[in-house]
Amino acid sequence: MKFLTEYLVFRLPSRVGFINITPEVEQVVKKSGVQEGLVLCNAMHITASVFINDDESGLHHDYEQWLEKLAPFNADPAVYHHNRTGEDNADAHLKRQIMGREVVVAITEGELDFGPWEQIFYGEFDGNRAKRVLIKVIGE
Amino acid sequence: MKFLTEYLVFRLPSRVGFINITPEVEQVVKKSGVQEGLVLCNAMHITASVFINDDESGLHHDYEQWLEKLAPFNADPAVYHHNRTGEDNADAHLKRQIMGREVVVAITEGELDFGPWEQIFYGEFDGNRAKRVLIKVIGE
Amino acid sequence: MKFLTEYLVFRLPSRVGFINITPEVEQVVKKSGVQEGLVLCNAMHITASVFINDDESGLHHDYEQWLEKLAPFNADPAVYHHNRTGEDNADAHLKRQIMGREVVVAITEGELDFGPWEQIFYGEFDGNRAKRVLIKVIGE
Repeated sequence: MKFLTEYLVFRLPSRVGFINITPEVEQVVKKSGVQEGLVLCNAMHITASVFINDDESGLHHDYEQWLEKLAPFNADPAVYHHNRTGEDNADAHLKRQIMGREVVVAITEGELDFGPWEQIFYGEFDGNRAKRVLIKVIGE
Repeated sequence: MKFLTEYLVFRLPSRVGFINITPEVEQVVKKSGVQEGLVLCNAMHITASVFINDDESGLHHDYEQWLEKLAPFNADPAVYHHNRTGEDNADAHLKRQIMGREVVVAITEGELDFGPWEQIFYGEFDGNRAKRVLIKVIGE
Repeated sequence: MKFLTEYLVFRLPSRVGFINITPEVEQVVKKSGVQEGLVLCNAMHITASVFINDDESGLHHDYEQWLEKLAPFNADPAVYHHNRTGEDNADAHLKRQIMGREVVVAITEGELDFGPWEQIFYGEFDGNRAKRVLIKVIGE
């Protein structure tokens, strides 16, 4: 049984944004030497997501608009009680629940076993600071 | 360590729909011979979901209505920028994020280790074409 | 290869609530003796969630308000068809899809490989009865 754990660090210059991290995950899978197994990829911070969807800038714009409608930013502690802690990022904790914390991807014959359009993204909802993503490969 | 990877293909005759795929997943688990392990089951397309909930047609009606309210279909590229690519399925990419891409299920004593009502569904949000689901069993 | 499966039981005295189950998951990981691997933690009931976020009571209040807005309780079977079965918990099946069924967490050097604020929660959306959570450790 083989394992490999790696950590990526991201610091987005904006509050919200999406980064394609598929090449980094592929590299870790190659490095692990695992031919058959699973790779877990998760945000280590609770105002960020890892998710799989399309690498299309129009869609990313749509996600941003849509999440803002479902869970609007509002620093007012009367609106979000979480912001009584001195934070202003309650909305980011909600947005992350819709987009998810993690993905688990099959590794088959040494490759990410993906459909034609699947790409892995880091989703940031409270940026401007360094945050980590964990990649854990397990298999044989 | 044992592995088995299988692919299911679905072609729904409607835009939105839900199919219970639990029997197919159980079959793959049996075929794998794995007694203790995990099974990953994911949509390989980014306008579809795999999720676990109740096999109850009223609930599926409610999911459809609810998702339409949270992420309404709209082909207009002024509403969803993704539709500027010539697609009309931006809403399906949003709906899939709420319902999720994948499930990971425990295998205990050779069976899906499920609560009383847990059933695995394929959720389609942009049907009328063939799409795949991946099933990967890992364990011993 | 090592495995361990354990079940937790929760009976919340309210319809909606959140319980930090990180200590229980840590205990199962220790007991398993797994140094490198994965732990799956999922609700076994389809009106409950397991998710990872912040242990902050203001945020939990915000989740409750927000979910009620996105998927309001309504016992009327004309509103939710699921409630034609005699149930009144259709809203709970919707809320659970937003918060998710499961988490998969990396185990590294015998510990949950967590970011600074990650904590595992059981989320209840139709309480006042006993419900189970499954914990499955797999690794070496």
